[in-house]
Amino acid sequence: MLSKMQKALIALLSVIILFLGFVIVRIGFKPISTVKVAAIPAGEYDPAVWGQHYPLQYESYKKMYEMSPSPTGYGGSVKVQKSEAQSELFANFRGMPFSEDYAEERGHVYSLEDLRDSKRISKASKGACISCKTPYVEQFYQESGWGYANKPLKELLDRAKHPVSCASCHDPETMSLRVIAPAFIDAQERRGIDMSKATREEMRTYVCAQCHDEYYFEPGTSRVVLPWDKGMRPEEMYAYYAEKPNGFTQDWQHPDSKATILKAQHPDYETYMTGTHGKAGVTCADCHMPFMRKSGQKYTSHNITSPVKNLDSSCSPCHSQGSAWLLERVKTMQDQTWQLQHNAGQTVARAHEAVKKAGDSANVDQVELAKARELVRKAQWMWDFVAAESSMGFHNTDQSMATLGQANELAHQAIEAANRAAGIKVL
Amino acid sequence: MLSKMQKALIALLSVIILFLGFVIVRIGFKPISTVKVAAIPAGEYDPAVWGQHYPLQYESYKKMYEMSPSPTGYGGSVKVQKSEAQSELFANFRGMPFSEDYAEERGHVYSLEDLRDSKRISKASKGACISCKTPYVEQFYQESGWGYANKPLKELLDRAKHPVSCASCHDPETMSLRVIAPAFIDAQERRGIDMSKATREEMRTYVCAQCHDEYYFEPGTSRVVLPWDKGMRPEEMYAYYAEKPNGFTQDWQHPDSKATILKAQHPDYETYMTGTHGKAGVTCADCHMPFMRKSGQKYTSHNITSPVKNLDSSCSPCHSQGSAWLLERVKTMQDQTWQLQHNAGQTVARAHEAVKKAGDSANVDQVELAKARELVRKAQWMWDFVAAESSMGFHNTDQSMATLGQANELAHQAIEAANRAAGIKVL
Repeated sequence: MLSKMQKALIALLSVIILFLGFVIVRIGFKPISTVKVAAIPAGEYDPAVWGQHYPLQYESYKKMYEMSPSPTGYGGSVKVQKSEAQSELFANFRGMPFSEDYAEERGHVYSLEDLRDSKRISKASKGACISCKTPYVEQFYQESGWGYANKPLKELLDRAKHPVSCASCHDPETMSLRVIAPAFIDAQERRGIDMSKATREEMRTYVCAQCHDEYYFEPGTSRVVLPWDKGMRPEEMYAYYAEKPNGFTQDWQHPDSKATILKAQHPDYETYMTGTHGKAGVTCADCHMPFMRKSGQKYTSHNITSPVKNLDSSCSPCHSQGSAWLLERVKTMQDQTWQLQHNAGQTVARAHEAVKKAGDSANVDQVELAKARELVRKAQWMWDFVAAESSMGFHNTDQSMATLGQANELAHQAIEAANRAAGIKVL
Repeated sequence: MLSKMQKALIALLSVIILFLGFVIVRIGFKPISTVKVAAIPAGEYDPAVWGQHYPLQYESYKKMYEMSPSPTGYGGSVKVQKSEAQSELFANFRGMPFSEDYAEERGHVYSLEDLRDSKRISKASKGACISCKTPYVEQFYQESGWGYANKPLKELLDRAKHPVSCASCHDPETMSLRVIAPAFIDAQERRGIDMSKATREEMRTYVCAQCHDEYYFEPGTSRVVLPWDKGMRPEEMYAYYAEKPNGFTQDWQHPDSKATILKAQHPDYETYMTGTHGKAGVTCADCHMPFMRKSGQKYTSHNITSPVKNLDSSCSPCHSQGSAWLLERVKTMQDQTWQLQHNAGQTVARAHEAVKKAGDSANVDQVELAKARELVRKAQWMWDFVAAESSMGFHNTDQSMATLGQANELAHQAIEAANRAAGIKVL
């Protein structure tokens, strides 16, 4: 027989073991991080130096040297001209450098090399162009504030020895996440967001958002400005630009339609944040920098690329349907977006042509012609907002498709206005 | 001190308790169903009789008498004319009954009443129209096979005493799920699907799918046919109709454009099954008939309506973000779809007008005119495929938006072809 004491002991032990079992079930076996923070001197921009202390992260970072296509057929990191699949780029960017060179972006490790080799830069290019290509922008800004933006690009390119890398997103002494792109810090301040109070979760998006967004150069100073003061949707940014902010009116004038055009620049963050993942609080790093394991050690992948290349690591932690299922879903959304994008881009090209013909015609109605130019300007903005974005609609499929539908409609309206301007009565 | 025996007992007890704790954590406390199957005679179609045995289900079924709008502003069960928000319906359905009466559908309890009151039916209406409005279709088909479809609708309406209800989806003796709509059973057979082998999960979709899909009436016999032989996407069904199946060529000829038009009929199942929820194996009943509890008893809600009216029961079992978040997501997708739908519908209306003017013009080019008519036929089909669907794009947002983008483009192409037909040279 058991004594009262023994019975109590059994009961207590049972409760403890049950509790422990419950804890184990709930939290799983999480390995303890073995990463030790090594203080790296401020101003150290060489990723190889950082890599000595963080070998797993650095090893994954270097994987970005390997270029590979995306399994869905959109994006990827192989340097191909986008015009190969969409010849409408030649027409829509006529008269400006994107019509000559519009290559698919490669990984961060190539950011400086691809800037140097780009046919889009010339002797007249300004320092502003280097803002998101290297952590040296921290130094440039420390030295001369926004003055760096108006210096000759070549001068800064000669000084920048390393592409986007560790120091772009990490404080060298504490390894905590940070942002250094001055335009993003300015824009957040204007939005009333105090970056010093950002949580780690927020920083896991902000480190990417500091560069992956739409911007323009302030005339005269070349200061980089993010056009977010009225909101981050394509309509809201278009309304912002309509007010000629800081004297900025256009990226260039299209030589055919004579419309003043805005070039959209990868509005990835803006698109993502109103999409399902953004709204659900999923950060950029959650999908683009999944957790990996090597020899029992858990680390964040720094091979920043399309998540569809690593569906099991990137998507499966939340979506349990298996990688084939997930790939089909992403590909379907991208295929449908591409269909609308290609169509809208072609209609915009036709609109430039129609507006040119109207402008060349005798007795043109100038009021209707101005309307046609405004319509093609807006059509191109809506199309380019999606075409220049990096996810082929994935970041926000419904907004991207609605934007493209509008772009196509506006381009058709531009053609109709051009006909009216030329005095052609259509049915 | 504890003896060896006592120590072993403690260890064993601990293991048992740990195991029980684990089981409780894993499976949760599931109440045992208290529903007892009551055999109801075959041919009993009165839901009140069934309701005596299944009071919770019947009580929820009767909630469908209460009509209410959807919180997103789309759908809902209030009988309003759809043309109030989209006047393009008058133009696009000119010359056929949908231009006179196109009310929002109310709940299943009103299916017979709304059929009787519809301005779309006349003395010439056939029995085929009752196919999905009452469980009596089982009896009609048992009596005369497809012969019922060609009988006068009035004759069958006089016999049908109860609207869509218990017997439409349940075997009266075993209460297992069943389908009775002959057209669906035929179509599944043609697809090679043996309905006798359907799982319960599949049946939780099939009971709805037996009616919520696109169909046409075979000329001569009025037999109801589902046009799935080439697939269930809008393009595939359009290709199927192009082959004049069973001699069917059109629902009516539009009096303005003279195009032969197909009326799309709520292709809900077809749209859902290639969308994310369908692909993930989520059944219709999972969202539209969530599990509810009353006095500790768990039952399936038979108040079949929009899930956004019951987000907590319908969506939250899978999506944990809370009802406000979920509602915003659904509403955003529907708003974007509506924007494209309304635009496409208006362009289709303009196309009918342009094609009419071309047809009326002297020296019309008949080849171009035929092209214009074919384009407006297809444009209207693509638009109507989404406009006639019940979810304002929610069931498959990317496909719905791509379809609408195509519809709008095709309508513009029809206008251009009409101009060419009339000899008008546009820019």
